This record gives sequence, C-alpha cells and structure tokens, in this order.
Amino acid sequence: MEVKVRLFHRCELVLFFSFLLLLHFRTVRGVWPLPQSFTSSPERVSLQPGAFYFTYGLQSEVTAGCSVLDEAFIRYFPLIFPDYFQKPQDSSFTLEVSVDQDDCEGYPAQDSSERYNLTIAAGHGILSAESVWGALRGLESFSQLVYQDDSGTYYVNKTDIEDFPQFPFRGILLDTSRHYLPLQAILKTLDGMAYSKFNVFHWHIVDDPSFPYQSRTFPNLSSKGAYHPSTHIYTQTDVRKVIAHARLRGIRVLPEFDSPGHTRSWGKGQPDLLTPCYRGTSPSGKFGPVNPSLASTYQFMSMLFKEVSLVFPDSYVHLGGDEVDFTCWRSNPDVVAFMNKMGFGSDFTKLEAFYMESIVNISTALNRTAIVWQDVFDYHEKIPKDTVLHIWKGVPAAYHTELARITKAGMRVILAAPWYINHINYGQDWRIYYSVQPLNFTGSEEQKKLVIGGEVCMWGEYVDATNLSPRMWPRASAAAERLWSDEKQTTRVDKAFPRLEEFRCRLLRRGIQAEPLFVGHCRHEYQGM
Amino acid sequence: MEVKVRLFHRCELVLFFSFLLLLHFRTVRGVWPLPQSFTSSPERVSLQPGAFYFTYGLQSEVTAGCSVLDEAFIRYFPLIFPDYFQKPQDSSFTLEVSVDQDDCEGYPAQDSSERYNLTIAAGHGILSAESVWGALRGLESFSQLVYQDDSGTYYVNKTDIEDFPQFPFRGILLDTSRHYLPLQAILKTLDGMAYSKFNVFHWHIVDDPSFPYQSRTFPNLSSKGAYHPSTHIYTQTDVRKVIAHARLRGIRVLPEFDSPGHTRSWGKGQPDLLTPCYRGTSPSGKFGPVNPSLASTYQFMSMLFKEVSLVFPDSYVHLGGDEVDFTCWRSNPDVVAFMNKMGFGSDFTKLEAFYMESIVNISTALNRTAIVWQDVFDYHEKIPKDTVLHIWKGVPAAYHTELARITKAGMRVILAAPWYINHINYGQDWRIYYSVQPLNFTGSEEQKKLVIGGEVCMWGEYVDATNLSPRMWPRASAAAERLWSDEKQTTRVDKAFPRLEEFRCRLLRRGIQAEPLFVGHCRHEYQGM
Repeated sequence: MEVKVRLFHRCELVLFFSFLLLLHFRTVRGVWPLPQSFTSSPERVSLQPGAFYFTYGLQSEVTAGCSVLDEAFIRYFPLIFPDYFQKPQDSSFTLEVSVDQDDCEGYPAQDSSERYNLTIAAGHGILSAESVWGALRGLESFSQLVYQDDSGTYYVNKTDIEDFPQFPFRGILLDTSRHYLPLQAILKTLDGMAYSKFNVFHWHIVDDPSFPYQSRTFPNLSSKGAYHPSTHIYTQTDVRKVIAHARLRGIRVLPEFDSPGHTRSWGKGQPDLLTPCYRGTSPSGKFGPVNPSLASTYQFMSMLFKEVSLVFPDSYVHLGGDEVDFTCWRSNPDVVAFMNKMGFGSDFTKLEAFYMESIVNISTALNRTAIVWQDVFDYHEKIPKDTVLHIWKGVPAAYHTELARITKAGMRVILAAPWYINHINYGQDWRIYYSVQPLNFTGSEEQKKLVIGGEVCMWGEYVDATNLSPRMWPRASAAAERLWSDEKQTTRVDKAFPRLEEFRCRLLRRGIQAEPLFVGHCRHEYQGM
Repeated sequence: MEVKVRLFHRCELVLFFSFLLLLHFRTVRGVWPLPQSFTSSPERVSLQPGAFYFTYGLQSEVTAGCSVLDEAFIRYFPLIFPDYFQKPQDSSFTLEVSVDQDDCEGYPAQDSSERYNLTIAAGHGILSAESVWGALRGLESFSQLVYQDDSGTYYVNKTDIEDFPQFPFRGILLDTSRHYLPLQAILKTLDGMAYSKFNVFHWHIVDDPSFPYQSRTFPNLSSKGAYHPSTHIYTQTDVRKVIAHARLRGIRVLPEFDSPGHTRSWGKGQPDLLTPCYRGTSPSGKFGPVNPSLASTYQFMSMLFKEVSLVFPDSYVHLGGDEVDFTCWRSNPDVVAFMNKMGFGSDFTKLEAFYMESIVNISTALNRTAIVWQDVFDYHEKIPKDTVLHIWKGVPAAYHTELARITKAGMRVILAAPWYINHINYGQDWRIYYSVQPLNFTGSEEQKKLVIGGEVCMWGEYVDATNLSPRMWPRASAAAERLWSDEKQTTRVDKAFPRLEEFRCRLLRRGIQAEPLFVGHCRHEYQGM
C-alpha cells in the first residue's frame, strides 16, 4: 500500500514537472537576433492592451512630437497585441522610453548608435537609448517578449536586456532591374528588415535588363530603359516613400548605380553613353560598358550623381564597378586611341581604374562615401581610403581569403559572399547562413575592425514579388543574428532552431510570408492566399 | 545609286519583317499544355467583351442548367477578359459549346473523356466534346488564345484544335499533415491545376505529424491528432467544398489514408491502434506502425474506410503502404506471436503483405479501386490485379527500371518519382521536370499502356501556405505538358520556354503566385503582397 502511494506521488511529480515544462513552453523562447546580454526571470507580468501605455521618460531628450518614436508606438501596439479585445482592466503597464539625443528628424547613419537597455518589471518597463534608432531596436525586442496564453491573456516576463549590434552595417540587397518589384514588395521587405534588426536597404535599382529609376534630369533613362515606361518604374514619389518608410524603421537606403558594366539598359535612353563594339573596322551594332573615353560620359555621370545625392539622403552611395568585360572596349578604335593618349598601353584594368576613380571623385565632391564591389580593389590606385569594398567573391568558403587580403590593405569591407540568398537549396539551408564567421580570418585586430558589416543579397534572376518573401524570410534572419549578436553566444545552430522557429511564427502573425523551417505549425498560419 | 536604293529596299524589308515579328509577338505563343493538333492562322478576330456570348449547341446533350458548364462560363468570362471595360460594340462573337453526353451532375472519373475540338472563325467559335470534362479543357484552351493589344482590344486568331490527353491520370499531391494548409490554399491550387489541365488532386491528408481530417466516426483522431483541434483541421464542410470546387474544374479528389506506417498522429486519438514498441520485455512507451495482429485494427479500418467511401465520391482510394519500419513490430511479443500463428516465420514483409491485402480487400468491398505506393509491389501476392502502383523510387534516373519491372508484372502504374517538386534547385529546374519521358523504358506496347499517368508531389516538410504557390507554379506546369501533350511535339525545352513564360504571366494575371522562369517581366506583375 505504502509503495503504491509513493508511486502515485512520483507520478504527480512527473505531471507537475511536465506542467512546468508546458508553462515554460508557453513563454517566449527569446528575442531574435539574440541580445548581447539577456536576463529573464520566470516571473511574468500580465499585460492588458487597454491599460498599456508608451511614455517618454522625464530625462528624455526626445518627447512627444518625435515622428520616429510616435509612429513606432502606433505601429508596435498591434504588433505587441495582435488580437486586441477589450477586457476589464485591473492593472496598467507603462513602457517608458528615454533617448539621450534628439535625432528625431534626421536619418540613421553609419555611425548612429543602436544601443539600448530594456528593463521590464511589474507595472512598467524602461527602455533607454542613446538615439531614437536604438530605441526602435529596443521596441522591437520588447514586442518579441510579449506572449499569450491559451485564453489569450498577454504576458511579459521580468527581463533585463543590454544590447548593441556586433556590426554597424547590416544590409539587404534587392535587385529591381532583373525583375521589377512593385513598391509594396519593397515596403514589406523593409518591415521584415526592421523585425530582424537589419539597418541598410541596398537598392540595386538598375542594371542591364531594365532601368526603373525615373530620373528628373534624364527621364529617358526609364521611359526607354524600363520594362514599361509607366507601370515598371519608380517615380520620385515612390523613392521618397521608400526612404521615409525606411527612416521610420531606422533603415538607411543605399542606392546603387552600377557602372561601367551592367549598364545595357542605360544605353536605350542615353545615346553615346555606352561603348559601340566593333567587328573588324565597323561597329557591330552591339554596345559594351559605359564609354570611358568621352568627356560627355563624365558630364552625364556628374549630373546623374548630383541628382542621386539630392534624392537619397544617406552619406554613402554604391558605385558598382563589378564584372567589366574588356572585349568591347578592346574592339573600339576610339577607346584604344584614348588608352594610348593616357599611356595605359594595353592594360584595360588601368582604364577601368581611371573610370572608377573619376566616378568616386564625382561622389566625393558630392560629400558621398563610395562603396564599390571588390573588383575595384584589384586595380585601385587612387581610390580614397574611406571607400568601402563589397566582398562578393570567394564562395563557398574562400571569402576569408578575400577578407584578409583587402583588410590588410587597410580598406573597410562589407561581406556579402556567403549570403547570396537568392541561391536556394532543399532543406534547412538557413544553417549555412547562420554558420558564417565574418571575423574568422587571419589578420590583426585592426584588420577585423575594418569589417564594418555584412549584407544579404537577393539577386533577381529568378526572384520577383511572387517568391521574394518566402525566399527571404526567415533565411535572411539567420544572417541577421550573425550580424547583430555576439558570435560566442550564438555558435550553436541547434540552439538557434527553436528560437528562429518561434520568430518565424511571429513574422507570419505580422503578415510576412516567411516559409517554414521544418515540419510543424504556427498557432496562426499564413492566411494571405 | 542603284546599289543604295537596293540597300534601302533591303532595309525596308528587314524593317517589315521585324514589324511582322513584332505583330507575331503581340499574338499568343500558344496554349499550355500544347494541344495534340493545333493550327493557327495569322488572321485575327477582335472580341468585344460586351458582345461575347457562350451558348450551348443545338445538338448538345447538355444545355443551360448544367452546373459544370454554366459555372465555367461565369468563371471563364473574367479569365478571358481580365480588364473588362464597356466599349461601343460593332461585332459579336459566340462560342458555341456542344457536349455528346450529359454528365453534368456526376464526377470526373478515370475513364472520363477529356477530348475536345475547338474551331475559331470570324464571329463564332465551336467547342465540341464528348463530356463536360472535355468541354472544360476546351474552355481553358480558348481562354489562353485570347490576347490584348496595347490599346486593350481583345483578339483571338482563327484556330483549329483537336485535343486529348496523353495520359488519363495527371495528378498533384498536397501533403496537409507535415504542414496544415488552410482551405484557401487548397482551393487556389485546384484553380492552378485546372489552368494546367491537371485532373487528379491526390490529398495526402494525414501522416505522422498530424491528423487534420475531422472524421464523423472517429472525431478523436483530429481532436487529439491534429496540430490544433479547431483551427488546424478539415471539417466535413471543408472537404465537401474541396470536392465541389474540384468537380466544377473536372478534377478528381483522391484521398490517401496511408497505413500501416506514417500513422503516428492516428495513435493519439485511437488507443490500441498502433503497435507498442518494446525495449527487452517491457513496452518502451513508443509506438510503431499500425498493429496488424489485432482484430480491432481491421474493424477500425473498415469503419474508417466506410466513412471515406461515403465522403469521397471517387472510385479510387489511396491506401499508402510505404516505408514500413519493422523494428517495432519485431520487438512486440504479441506481433511475434501473431507471426508464428500465421506461419510467417520471421519474414515481416509477409505480415505487411497480409495487412495491406486486408486493407485492399476492405476498399474492394466498398467498390473502391486501390492505389498503393510501390513498396507494396515487392511483397504483393494477393493484391487484386486492378490495384495501381505508385512509383516514387528510382530518383533521379532509375525510375525507368521501376516502370519496366512493375508493368512487366501486368500492374498499372502512376509515375511520381521524377516529379517530387518540393525539392528545389537554384535556376531553371523546370527543365528537368519537362524532360521526363514516362514511356522511355524497355517494355512491350502492352506494358506502356499500363502507365496510366503521372503525379507531381509537393511533400510538406518545408512547404506550407507561405511558399506553396511559387514552389508549385509554373514548375508543375512543365510536368502538366509532359502528361497532357504529345511527347514528339514537345521534346525541345528551349521551344517550350517562351510559351511557358507567357503561360506564367497568364497565371499571375489570374492571381496565381507563380514564380518567374528567368529575367524579364509580365505586363501585369503580381500585386498580392
């Protein structure tokens, strides 16, 4: 009899522990990307949407009227409380936000602080940051800490977070030339970026296949070079909307006007810009890269980048410079004559260097820091030291060699090579993106500091608005954690899995069409069919 | 001078031919999948939506009141005229539909005729078919022949089509167990299937991870075995909606209740159904396949399949039978005792054969023809000769061996192996699906006739409503052409490319989230973000 009772007690214990486990499961698995320092108590605080308040702290330099935070409060309310129904309220909760520096009306920049501290206690939370951009990151983290039990009640656990990004540059590239992406697809991507704490939208806006940017100065570029002159373009209003939407989410917009290669579509609306290719002694009717031998080219580029610097507020501009094929230049007698005049002999890399140097100088004169693809490094001579090299070669594993080589020359770099996310493999390929180690190359501490960040590239050969979101999310979020979080705390892919799975369900709930990691379900499935 | 004039003339000629080419480009590139016989004249007829009529032919056995065609006319009007605006009408066009046999209120079946003839002349078209299902295929072809010029005017070229499918079974499998697919995702897939002339929806409705089918007889199966008992299930109403939606599009619904393996979720709501696995002499707490040693198992299965035969009208039912792991059966003393009693020795394939034979007999008694995965073939003995084997092994290229082996035994087969479309590779992998040759195996003419068709399988490990459509379309459409069209006329992938590209844009226009084949654009891009 005694034995039986004991067994019964043991059973109860097991049941109790299972229940605890269940309870634990009903909390959140954490924030994605993982904060630098995160302490969570099992003690939970219930939240009532009708008695939840955002306020500005008394010491805050920023107060009501700050567009970035006022609008963030409005945006985050339904993100925190996705199904809000009125209930009797017996306790209120206030999230008090304090910001040291009033940068409300500005734009996020390369040196903006994104640091924040977040403390959650009974009845109130305190979010403090140096800048509004840091406050945005903290709001995102807060929104990810709130969860619901089966009855729908909201909870948040007592929590302390101190957080800042590992890298200041955490980008996503969209390619709107190979396929046109409707404005909505871009804005939706910006939303997803904010949820994963990305902070740079690298807009690869034009390329060989089409020129959708509607220029004020050169309207023919899009009216003749876009897929369609009125439906497949980005008007000035569209661009303004993108920049404003990004700003409110702490995201920089980095435009890329790639030249001298990748410019076929430019030629349609701008005669004499591209190099006429020759077959023997006469033009073949085909065109090659931008013609670097004509003064008119540099006049055109000056005017174009002048406009770009007026339209895009970020102090960086991407000038491209990748994959230039010399065949056409070599065939053209005017280009060859120019080579001779300049004393370049038959070394076309010198011509390319000359061209890129001129374009970088144009952007420097416009107070812009240039980013160029790493190709430019191989023949750089007079490229300013603050130019950033964008590493895209060395896939799958040799990008470490590229990092070592280019940082050794003292140049700053952005790593994109291992994150060409348009490439897709069956199964859990997010694990590959998660396992990238951007600083694991042979080099000094000084060299490591030159790695300013990384970028997820969604090239458009096989991607448009139909498959952009499921191909991007949550695979890009794996890279986001690598770029934001402490690498030492985030080495284990299997440990990341349940947190990323939960984060993915949260993305679904927020209307982001994020594909599943593996067999399973979300409480709220995607309903957007 | 003379020479110059000639050159000029030559130029004009070139311009003229370019213009013709341009004109040609503004027509349609054809119908997907390619009809068996297709003759199109360059002469075009303008269509005015306000003066366009469907009528039933005087000789037609089917007339107004036929749900399948009445509703198809309503559905196809906006598919034919996607942006309908009133214009002055000067000429009318009537599409006259005649059907030999009144099967309006029935369901499409394995032996239904899908043959149709379509003739388009000035002012009218004639569509004739043996059955309403054939008429549906003809309507789809007609809708794909209509195109718009830049001003928005609709045209159709004078055309003669005689058409019928290469294979009577052209299926798509959806897996609603590994991920739950909301009803809308299934209905939308049925729409896409009709556009590609697929005719069987193979509903792999339950499996290990979840049991979303809400059974009338055994409600616990879903209330305990589904991911969620009320949001992640298919009610009887849902199932009826799927069957009705499919019927109106000439699509059969083939349900699969896979056993004895792949049944983990069944065990939650049906005690004693699964085999308790043993560790040594005591149960380990884990469960294996369905327990084939208990009479209660067969009683349960009889009742379940009785319900299935009442709910699903198709005369075929899929019984699964794949990937049975014998480890658990081997560990269980009751199963071993049963083996001895039956004289199976230690050959567990005999036990599996015994089990499958029993289940096939249950379905035969319910007037259902069984389809089983090819695994069953290897230990079949008394499986009825009309059972269909579903070939899923032999990837990437050895499925021809499987086809030869199984048809040699006189069994009918469906080919799925080369079309596991959930697998994805970067780039144009539709070319692989297009290049499959289902009849290119060593065997007699009689053997070839036993290949009744093929199936595109979208297994759910990494697929749910977020990525189903772009992963399915237009990649599945490549297989659709292989299954519908004459192989000799459709061998060249490069010739198929522009037609599939156009078809994909048409899918977009119809709201199907079909991903791009390569760089380019559609006049109307996907706007569903």
